[in-house]
Amino acid sequence: MEKAENLSVVLHAKGDLRLEQRPVPEPGPNEVLLQMHSVGICGSDVHYWQNGRIGDFVVQKPMVLGHEASGRVVKVGSNVKHLQPGDRVAVEPGVPREEDEFFKAGHYNLSPTIFFCATPPDDGNLCRYYKHSACFCYKLPDNVTFEEGALIEPLSVGIHACRRAGVTLGSSVLICGAGPIGLVCLLVAKAMGAAQVIITDLSTDRLAMAKDLGADFPVTVQRADGAQDLAATVQGMLGAQPHISIECTGVESSVQTAIYATRPGGVVVLVGMGSEMTTVPLLNAAIKEVDIRGVFRYCNTWPMAIAMLASGKVNVKPLVTHRFPLEQAVHAFETTRQGLGIKVMLKCDQNDQEP
Amino acid sequence: MEKAENLSVVLHAKGDLRLEQRPVPEPGPNEVLLQMHSVGICGSDVHYWQNGRIGDFVVQKPMVLGHEASGRVVKVGSNVKHLQPGDRVAVEPGVPREEDEFFKAGHYNLSPTIFFCATPPDDGNLCRYYKHSACFCYKLPDNVTFEEGALIEPLSVGIHACRRAGVTLGSSVLICGAGPIGLVCLLVAKAMGAAQVIITDLSTDRLAMAKDLGADFPVTVQRADGAQDLAATVQGMLGAQPHISIECTGVESSVQTAIYATRPGGVVVLVGMGSEMTTVPLLNAAIKEVDIRGVFRYCNTWPMAIAMLASGKVNVKPLVTHRFPLEQAVHAFETTRQGLGIKVMLKCDQNDQEP
Amino acid sequence: MEKAENLSVVLHAKGDLRLEQRPVPEPGPNEVLLQMHSVGICGSDVHYWQNGRIGDFVVQKPMVLGHEASGRVVKVGSNVKHLQPGDRVAVEPGVPREEDEFFKAGHYNLSPTIFFCATPPDDGNLCRYYKHSACFCYKLPDNVTFEEGALIEPLSVGIHACRRAGVTLGSSVLICGAGPIGLVCLLVAKAMGAAQVIITDLSTDRLAMAKDLGADFPVTVQRADGAQDLAATVQGMLGAQPHISIECTGVESSVQTAIYATRPGGVVVLVGMGSEMTTVPLLNAAIKEVDIRGVFRYCNTWPMAIAMLASGKVNVKPLVTHRFPLEQAVHAFETTRQGLGIKVMLKCDQNDQEP
Amino acid sequence: MEKAENLSVVLHAKGDLRLEQRPVPEPGPNEVLLQMHSVGICGSDVHYWQNGRIGDFVVQKPMVLGHEASGRVVKVGSNVKHLQPGDRVAVEPGVPREEDEFFKAGHYNLSPTIFFCATPPDDGNLCRYYKHSACFCYKLPDNVTFEEGALIEPLSVGIHACRRAGVTLGSSVLICGAGPIGLVCLLVAKAMGAAQVIITDLSTDRLAMAKDLGADFPVTVQRADGAQDLAATVQGMLGAQPHISIECTGVESSVQTAIYATRPGGVVVLVGMGSEMTTVPLLNAAIKEVDIRGVFRYCNTWPMAIAMLASGKVNVKPLVTHRFPLEQAVHAFETTRQGLGIKVMLKCDQNDQEP
Repeated sequence: MEKAENLSVVLHAKGDLRLEQRPVPEPGPNEVLLQMHSVGICGSDVHYWQNGRIGDFVVQKPMVLGHEASGRVVKVGSNVKHLQPGDRVAVEPGVPREEDEFFKAGHYNLSPTIFFCATPPDDGNLCRYYKHSACFCYKLPDNVTFEEGALIEPLSVGIHACRRAGVTLGSSVLICGAGPIGLVCLLVAKAMGAAQVIITDLSTDRLAMAKDLGADFPVTVQRADGAQDLAATVQGMLGAQPHISIECTGVESSVQTAIYATRPGGVVVLVGMGSEMTTVPLLNAAIKEVDIRGVFRYCNTWPMAIAMLASGKVNVKPLVTHRFPLEQAVHAFETTRQGLGIKVMLKCDQNDQEP
Repeated sequence: MEKAENLSVVLHAKGDLRLEQRPVPEPGPNEVLLQMHSVGICGSDVHYWQNGRIGDFVVQKPMVLGHEASGRVVKVGSNVKHLQPGDRVAVEPGVPREEDEFFKAGHYNLSPTIFFCATPPDDGNLCRYYKHSACFCYKLPDNVTFEEGALIEPLSVGIHACRRAGVTLGSSVLICGAGPIGLVCLLVAKAMGAAQVIITDLSTDRLAMAKDLGADFPVTVQRADGAQDLAATVQGMLGAQPHISIECTGVESSVQTAIYATRPGGVVVLVGMGSEMTTVPLLNAAIKEVDIRGVFRYCNTWPMAIAMLASGKVNVKPLVTHRFPLEQAVHAFETTRQGLGIKVMLKCDQNDQEP
Repeated sequence: MEKAENLSVVLHAKGDLRLEQRPVPEPGPNEVLLQMHSVGICGSDVHYWQNGRIGDFVVQKPMVLGHEASGRVVKVGSNVKHLQPGDRVAVEPGVPREEDEFFKAGHYNLSPTIFFCATPPDDGNLCRYYKHSACFCYKLPDNVTFEEGALIEPLSVGIHACRRAGVTLGSSVLICGAGPIGLVCLLVAKAMGAAQVIITDLSTDRLAMAKDLGADFPVTVQRADGAQDLAATVQGMLGAQPHISIECTGVESSVQTAIYATRPGGVVVLVGMGSEMTTVPLLNAAIKEVDIRGVFRYCNTWPMAIAMLASGKVNVKPLVTHRFPLEQAVHAFETTRQGLGIKVMLKCDQNDQEP
Repeated sequence: MEKAENLSVVLHAKGDLRLEQRPVPEPGPNEVLLQMHSVGICGSDVHYWQNGRIGDFVVQKPMVLGHEASGRVVKVGSNVKHLQPGDRVAVEPGVPREEDEFFKAGHYNLSPTIFFCATPPDDGNLCRYYKHSACFCYKLPDNVTFEEGALIEPLSVGIHACRRAGVTLGSSVLICGAGPIGLVCLLVAKAMGAAQVIITDLSTDRLAMAKDLGADFPVTVQRADGAQDLAATVQGMLGAQPHISIECTGVESSVQTAIYATRPGGVVVLVGMGSEMTTVPLLNAAIKEVDIRGVFRYCNTWPMAIAMLASGKVNVKPLVTHRFPLEQAVHAFETTRQGLGIKVMLKCDQNDQEP
């Protein structure tokens, strides 16, 4: 292959998304070079494209998009022992740059200097060839597809959220929002033993998918619904307040609902990201000793996700509703932007467009 | 009903098991009177019958056996609010007598003065009518049978063991022993998200049942197998050491296997009860930081068990292999003593012998 | 003693506080009768007096005030084994009425039907004679005074807050507010191993006391201080963001400061109670994975508090700045209302007004 | 300085300890070069010297000893940002070589390929100049001496043990053994809020030191004491069974005592290392739900140790009983071998032999 033959999806600035050739990178001693296979489009990719920024992260120079990825090892660095060319791997997009207090304590996702695919200024992996820290590439068993491998990234958000929530055997769980993240939270909560999952959304289509994926109580909500009323509805349907609420919308009234709804001693997990300031019934949470816990990405999720996929305990395949070859990336992004389907997958390997 | 018409299975002394009439008890203000429906026979019931004692607990006066039970409320005490006559309930057999430090801290199973059905000198509930603390009777939903209700007791051992073990999404688990307790640990581990369960036993029949119930790797062992060899076999089959080992046999070599087998940072849970002193590779456990945790009965398991049974996430029905009317209790005990089947259920309600 | 000779401090309605005789109660089988010795006045007592209510708790019939108490056992119920007449005890004011899911799980403070001294409609113990559940009376060692026993109640708030916060060896802690509760949080945080405690208040007098009690960094704040500025000041003084912030004022801007100030992966504990709705930088907390945890009273604190006082590791004696005989209760309440000193202690035993 | 002028204490083989010149190393991009100042002698250093091995770790080629160390930065690698020449640092001797599952999860001490000073074949730092991973060198505040910095290593064993034990406010703790490790466990337990510490040893001298350092109950034991008798004595002295036992001797009967002594729901931590197989009352531990937890070195302890030393909450200075210049290393080792004093410190900087 020629150095320059690395078709990549590059965001140059707000609204300016291009397909262009970049050099094939050379892996360092602790890195591997991957031939990318399947890369999912995330809402954040679209958000950068449409807005040029998310919060303090601003696209100031051209950046390759993509961070939900899997591929095949084609070259390994000199120190790499656990991988070899030909291995199929899933890519964890966040790689800590320093062995700081957060990394040492097992929370490397909180390391302030972490590298993260497609968060400015770090390039993502929506391209033909990509190099990555070998320790953050995880070998896929034969019975796990590349697309399942790519879906470990959104699945990890669900794992981290449910783990932070303490979902366990017999838990009753309220999930606010039935978009891709709400759905992976649903899948994971069920796999961790949740007995009852109630999920809310504005869209009946999304709720129908949630029901197919195992939700016990899909609840259509209206923008005007009062938070306390909705909390009462949730309690009525479950026969008791849920132990756990996982908020995936970032909408203020939904955060309020999550707090009002949760049982004393329970947990509200904030996955959806709202505006900087939020008005919430903090007193209600405090006197119920309902903990409010955020999630920032995830850590230590790939091995358990692979174990679950290999064992067949979690089925993420229905989440993929659209596939496009890499060459049609802009069309694929447009599909996600329009909110069609659940997960759009880009197929980066010209010789293998299979799942 | 007449006061004396309460057919009960009474152990008078080692080997002296009798069916006899006892008075129907009168519930106190915080109690309910139950018409018993289904009561499972536990190995400990048989052990008291055959040996007259378990450790320091000695049968010194006639004692009603039975502690895996469900029934129907027929009378409620004056303070009882959450139950009413007609309610179908599962019975938690341990009821703390004092609000001591253990109870207050959420470990009421460790309260030294706890009442416990069919542990000398406390009577059990293998009879027609039985009174119990209302707070330790749990209403069964319509879609949970009485037998499922009775099986919550052994299921609770599995829940408590898996909870103490920290089984979670993607865990790999070694279970030593495929008797009733090993099997409930298997069911619970799977429901809590275990990706791989390897289970060992001397009996291929038991392992066949384990496989039917979801075990990924049933392994036949021989008495002469070396602990380190067996640990190596386990690692070979899983591709890595298990995160967790749950020892359900009480056999010394099996405890050794569990310790050798477990991954650094993992947990060994001791469910099986062996002899007072045990020789184990404690150094191996210590330098791997593998925690060794025992279980004493259970606490806080009935609500989550009912939630799981109601949601259909755990299927305990296949565990019941034999049923006898209460009048045939001695025959039923003999069946359990011979190790036939898995769980023998006694049917205490003459008018309803259904599951 | 005559039945009616039980001088009690009774709140009849908002603003209507009276000293009046009540009958001496008769302890039930699980209760003890106490001759009260020392009872501290809490801000909540004064709040009921001045406002007739706290949130949904409304004084609708005359109620004895007081819940920070110690006394001497004068009579024991028939079932009581661990106490006998003459024992000096500290009184835990919250006694669960039901063995519900919260009590069983070790969070009896969350039990919705709990009895709690001087929370309407339950009477408190600011009187000569008072009966209480024996299991919630804790024997004081000889080297712990009655006043120290009474101070276990506010100390428990600090223990529960610091425990919920996870204060441990080397923790750096921000405490917002140097009133009685902020000060007990300070004492407890230091006793649990906190290396650095920074404490803020509007009052330099309070901060001087905080410094005497061991605060490393007393910081005078102004009402107009910006939350982010204050957070930056805290970081500057500590050389890093604190692991933990304990908010004891309930003031919105102070909650905001606590969130902005806390290190990623840390904890904000809400002890102060503000208004129903609060506007906070929830996104900042979420993406730092800073947990927000409330406290509702406390549970399982008396034994460890007594152990600490007996060992001399915590010195609460300086907190008592005023003492009045029970007969001067109204004057004592007025002293607390004016915010004089820290803790006002009422002496209920006519024959022993010692600490 | 010349390349070869690096006086080092090198163990060539069992019994063959030499002082010899080695080259001054060159730090890599993520490393710093240190001029060593104070290095304590550990029992394990002496054990390698006397036996040539510890378990599976065998001295097969010359190895520099020493791993309790502090020094001054003299050169920094190109990537190092948080340190600069002149900084005084404490050295954490274990540095993971791979970002494996253990490191990522916050247990880097369990990483099987970890580098560890003076564990064969890795060189230690008992020498004039030593290079080390910059992320595992921690800057000392001005008010913490080099010797305190060196003592963070043994202190870390105590921190890790007490943290694994869950020592908290009001804990009662049994420590078996009053050698250097028992003493640091004592210091840390007290700093974490333990109310009562009972410590046992054969030597009254050691117990006298323990008493000086804050032990509440020093107990002289005899080799022939029965484990259950000793456990009863402990309970008698404390008035209750201890919550926690920390075993620092590795002697079988002492492990037995620790198990028998511990309160239901408590924890036994194994710090002392005994022989491969140990006979213990595992049943007693199991039915009391007393967890048995080992420790392997430590992780995440340096920052909290420095915070504690800087705040003056822990005083380790009395532990240093002997000091020798590096040139007298063999004499210093002999002193430790004879069990004289507590901690022998080697002074590696010819121009600064101060603490």
